Amino acid sequence: MVDWQMIYKQAKEWVVEAGDLIKKSLENELTIETKRNAKDLVTNVDKEIETFFYHKIQSSFAEHRIIGEESKGHDISDLSGIVWIIDPIDGTMNFVNQGRFFAISVGIYEEGIGKIGITYDVTRDEMFHCLSGNGFYMDDKRINTLKPFKMDEALIAVNSGLMMENRSFDYKIIHKLIRDARGSRHLGTATIQLAYVAAGILDCYFSTKISPWDIAAGRVFLNEVGGELTNFKGQELEVLERTSIIASKPGFHEIFFRDYLREK
Amino acid sequence: MVDWQMIYKQAKEWVVEAGDLIKKSLENELTIETKRNAKDLVTNVDKEIETFFYHKIQSSFAEHRIIGEESKGHDISDLSGIVWIIDPIDGTMNFVNQGRFFAISVGIYEEGIGKIGITYDVTRDEMFHCLSGNGFYMDDKRINTLKPFKMDEALIAVNSGLMMENRSFDYKIIHKLIRDARGSRHLGTATIQLAYVAAGILDCYFSTKISPWDIAAGRVFLNEVGGELTNFKGQELEVLERTSIIASKPGFHEIFFRDYLREK
Repeated sequence: MVDWQMIYKQAKEWVVEAGDLIKKSLENELTIETKRNAKDLVTNVDKEIETFFYHKIQSSFAEHRIIGEESKGHDISDLSGIVWIIDPIDGTMNFVNQGRFFAISVGIYEEGIGKIGITYDVTRDEMFHCLSGNGFYMDDKRINTLKPFKMDEALIAVNSGLMMENRSFDYKIIHKLIRDARGSRHLGTATIQLAYVAAGILDCYFSTKISPWDIAAGRVFLNEVGGELTNFKGQELEVLERTSIIASKPGFHEIFFRDYLREK
Repeated sequence: MVDWQMIYKQAKEWVVEAGDLIKKSLENELTIETKRNAKDLVTNVDKEIETFFYHKIQSSFAEHRIIGEESKGHDISDLSGIVWIIDPIDGTMNFVNQGRFFAISVGIYEEGIGKIGITYDVTRDEMFHCLSGNGFYMDDKRINTLKPFKMDEALIAVNSGLMMENRSFDYKIIHKLIRDARGSRHLGTATIQLAYVAAGILDCYFSTKISPWDIAAGRVFLNEVGGELTNFKGQELEVLERTSIIASKPGFHEIFFRDYLREK
């Protein structure tokens, strides 16, 4: 019998410990490299934090497997057993440029089912966390089931790429949506914006190019509070695919696919 | 002889006190009204905080004048003497929807010259503050003179309205700028984004419809650390006008007006 309460407690402790390491690193010079393109950044700290988790998990839970953004377990193609899906620093561009608005994000899955989600906004010292079935929390505050989406009161989070000519989506649909809503925001971190949707701080979030570690925790949060999550075609997401996402309060997807996509 | 150190200390204390009032108000139901349009919100708390400052200033500095966003002193058309320019809550939409990303912002001017700027991010408990000539601070950390703007490393803050069809500006210029930069962000608060530009956390910020209380503190910050500030025509701003703004690290304006606006 897996002791999920124990794993949950342990994972939260490691996340806080890793956060302290990141905070200390902000005082030092960073080594910055690029990955897929000039805007896809990685630092020595991303790699160090991933290694930190790797050693911790291996020593305490030798049978668990690990998928990390920066290299570990990228050969994993199935979700059998218990798998930790880790983004050591989500929002690396914010980390490098702003020294804020970045998070450590961890999702723990059993046979493909999300059991634990943790997203820790390091410099705000704010943790979003959930053990599936036991409630979604922002620090110590339990978040209630989400209320239905209301267009004229909604704040829509959307990456600027989706507001300009792009290969994924007609940006004019996004423009119309933002005009109809109360406003839009763009923080530059997927994991925090997903946590915000689940906490009712944002009403909806659109993004392309979401990897498993960007969404692993957020999916657990949204599931717990009745949020909606699909790709741009309205389909459910596979845990290990790279995908587009629309995350929202309940009711948004019906409005969007009925009233906005049909108009195209 | 005006004791500016004393006024600076007093103003910061009142701002923290007002912040505590706002934090307490987050536990209660808000009364929300609209002003110019459905997206221009004001709450009972905005008004209460403005009144708080009004009484404090009147009792300690009876000869100072006050311009506040929510009603006080809107008939003031000159800047003789000492004038407090106050936004009790900048980012009211964030306050209402998100309970975060809003600020109290105060600029104090003498004969039209900015002497003191304070922008307090209430829920982050982070204060940007400056007594002109004595340094710009983020909490206790003194911010150095800004380094020159570098396009390929820049984060550009821009309201989504400027990324869509609008009356002020060709949005395609903004799209090109964002593609050339490292990325863009949109937090939904002018005063915090201006403080971020002055602190080097953002590299540039574009906005339309900026009122005196949105910019009064930020202008003092930018002036202290060598930042640049103009309207969309590249002209200096009048303190009391409603205007567009471009705030940036040094060097951006030359690049922008030479390489981007000429292409139009």
